[in-house]
Amino acid sequence: MLQSKLFGKTLREAPRGEVSNNAILLSRAGYIDKLMAGAYSYLPLGYKVLAKIQQIVREEMEAIGGQEIYMPALQPKELWQETGRWEVLKEIMFQFKGRGDKEFGLATTHEEVIVDIVRKRLTSYRDLPLHLFQIQDKFRNEPRAKSGLLRGREFSMKDLYSFHASQKDLEDYYQKAIPAYQKIFKRCGLQSIVTEASGGVFTKEFSHEFQAPTPYGEDEIITCELCDFSQNTEICKLKEGDKCPKCGGKVKLTKSIEVGNIFKLGCKYSADMGLTYADESGKKQEVIMGCYGIGPSRVMGSVVEVHHDDKGIVWPKNLTPYHVHLLQISDKRKKDAEKIYQDLIKQNIAVLYDDREESAGVKLNDADLIGINLQLIVGDKTKDKIEYRTRSGKDRGIIKMDEVVKAVEKIYH
Amino acid sequence: MLQSKLFGKTLREAPRGEVSNNAILLSRAGYIDKLMAGAYSYLPLGYKVLAKIQQIVREEMEAIGGQEIYMPALQPKELWQETGRWEVLKEIMFQFKGRGDKEFGLATTHEEVIVDIVRKRLTSYRDLPLHLFQIQDKFRNEPRAKSGLLRGREFSMKDLYSFHASQKDLEDYYQKAIPAYQKIFKRCGLQSIVTEASGGVFTKEFSHEFQAPTPYGEDEIITCELCDFSQNTEICKLKEGDKCPKCGGKVKLTKSIEVGNIFKLGCKYSADMGLTYADESGKKQEVIMGCYGIGPSRVMGSVVEVHHDDKGIVWPKNLTPYHVHLLQISDKRKKDAEKIYQDLIKQNIAVLYDDREESAGVKLNDADLIGINLQLIVGDKTKDKIEYRTRSGKDRGIIKMDEVVKAVEKIYH
Repeated sequence: MLQSKLFGKTLREAPRGEVSNNAILLSRAGYIDKLMAGAYSYLPLGYKVLAKIQQIVREEMEAIGGQEIYMPALQPKELWQETGRWEVLKEIMFQFKGRGDKEFGLATTHEEVIVDIVRKRLTSYRDLPLHLFQIQDKFRNEPRAKSGLLRGREFSMKDLYSFHASQKDLEDYYQKAIPAYQKIFKRCGLQSIVTEASGGVFTKEFSHEFQAPTPYGEDEIITCELCDFSQNTEICKLKEGDKCPKCGGKVKLTKSIEVGNIFKLGCKYSADMGLTYADESGKKQEVIMGCYGIGPSRVMGSVVEVHHDDKGIVWPKNLTPYHVHLLQISDKRKKDAEKIYQDLIKQNIAVLYDDREESAGVKLNDADLIGINLQLIVGDKTKDKIEYRTRSGKDRGIIKMDEVVKAVEKIYH
Repeated sequence: MLQSKLFGKTLREAPRGEVSNNAILLSRAGYIDKLMAGAYSYLPLGYKVLAKIQQIVREEMEAIGGQEIYMPALQPKELWQETGRWEVLKEIMFQFKGRGDKEFGLATTHEEVIVDIVRKRLTSYRDLPLHLFQIQDKFRNEPRAKSGLLRGREFSMKDLYSFHASQKDLEDYYQKAIPAYQKIFKRCGLQSIVTEASGGVFTKEFSHEFQAPTPYGEDEIITCELCDFSQNTEICKLKEGDKCPKCGGKVKLTKSIEVGNIFKLGCKYSADMGLTYADESGKKQEVIMGCYGIGPSRVMGSVVEVHHDDKGIVWPKNLTPYHVHLLQISDKRKKDAEKIYQDLIKQNIAVLYDDREESAGVKLNDADLIGINLQLIVGDKTKDKIEYRTRSGKDRGIIKMDEVVKAVEKIYH
């Protein structure tokens, strides 16, 4: 892609009213555009990153037996009345009337619809277990939407629902979901701590959250220095320095971002909505459920909160919108840059080529702001050679023209 | 995929209240589930087909220079007031209040948002032309939603918006979009007729529709037997057998489905919303726009309307949810079927393997209902050989076990 043709110029100043790092950097670097608080458009660079996160999530959900479906956001009131959540969620659900005074809600979550789909088709224990997921946009009538992609009125969500004939089968699947989630966050360049938290409007049991530690998060978690004890302060009364109730070590307080959560729903929705199956003896039993959420847009915001410096974004290599940012910073070497551009395209390497008529300084600053994982710099200093450097600063050097493709392939393997 | 594990059993009877072929067949075959009139969930088979259509559309839009973005469905009233369409569209747009009495609409289309994004970033003629598209869900407060995927309250839409410095540049791009659209429909197995129609709420000029001829459509078009004259009856006063105004031949009337439409918007939105650029002399000019729509969910419904018989759906090969439907109809040959299943998986061929404990009759009927393009039948009649047949009936024969992979690859090349 020629940068002169790419839509989404970098901006010198942060848009008015943005206070979070992710919103400021993603806006300035041309990834997103703010439509209103909590609702962003993804520009070409931004859509590429979002789609990469969604694809990672999809692959890991398929790897634990998830079958992908897609459910409507627009939903009838009647279904939500079956579980009583039309009332419970009315503060955060957009609820409105259409033609003929029919009442609709915009989904904040999909338990009611998935149970409705499954109850029409499930008959016997032979149909279980079942794991269905979707990647779809959700809506919330959000009171505080000041955190960029971290908290939106409209946001991308992956929600998986699992259906089981026994508590043990749910537990087994739940224990499979945890490493699948950790793998997703690892692939996205995020550290994640499995943390106990409240079940919220989903269940009375504890749930588990995946927390990415950062000074910029909305959550606070108490973790132990010695063991894997971790609880959200929402349910934990311990303070910094207190004794860990599990191993006796010291606990500490971290501000953190919740990047995913999983819940054992039990029979709450099956009971309310009549989701049953016939067991081996032919007796009707309520289905036991779990649900598992990750917000790809929230992950995107979290990655920027964790991976940035004072120059801009530093994308982990799996999320970089292009593999290579090719910077031609000397007019004399236009031909060399164009040759490399063509060589990389031939190898199906995704490359953004800065062919603009701008100064070297502008190009280098923009490249650091945009944060593509690998920069190739074609300038006078290196004579007939090419400078390469990863945005993180971990890897850099000078190579010959004909070594470029090999060097890029090495970095992405 | 093992069919015993696939979610979405076939149903003997059509769901109550469904009258359109596409809704009846897609529901019975386990592709979709009706949440309410005009809102469907896509089950695993259905989501695969929808995603294939979306990918074809994406590829062809990228081939004519489209850059993919993604805009919110939830939009603020203020933006729609700038063009006066908050009032104009109020009958079909869901409009409602959120916290603090802030008013929102659910987008039926995205001219207002895209112009807002572009006006913040466009400065000079050097930034033009520009072609941005998204594949995203739209909402309509629909009075008649009885046509399955053809007319929804919530539906998948690809909308591309083009921005130009001159009328000629718009015309040139418009003439590129027409064959790109025809290629999309051809890849989806649909014949498409380019038809003149009214501009609706988008423009006062004529627009162009792409009409797939079928007896089951909602539209009527007048076409000429001799030349490419084609108009929607909405704007055409000719009757069956009248003289063609272009060549003097006879015209005929066809019931038809509109599967795409393109509009020259001119400066309507640029003028209303102040979208300008500086021309070569530095003078401010209004940007000239075009917009180009295709509904992937509507295409999916249209394909079923066009491609079905009394047994079920007949998917065109580019849209088939799996390449192969492998039917084991004799218990004695389970091992042979399993060997073929493994051989196909090894070659990355997408295969649905009917491993269920059901009769041959049930399996063959279900396969015809589901409509996967190629069936491989492992039964007693063919002894140690395999019967293959395409669902359309065009291609069939008997082959040896070790010829299967080659035969499948031949059909998909």
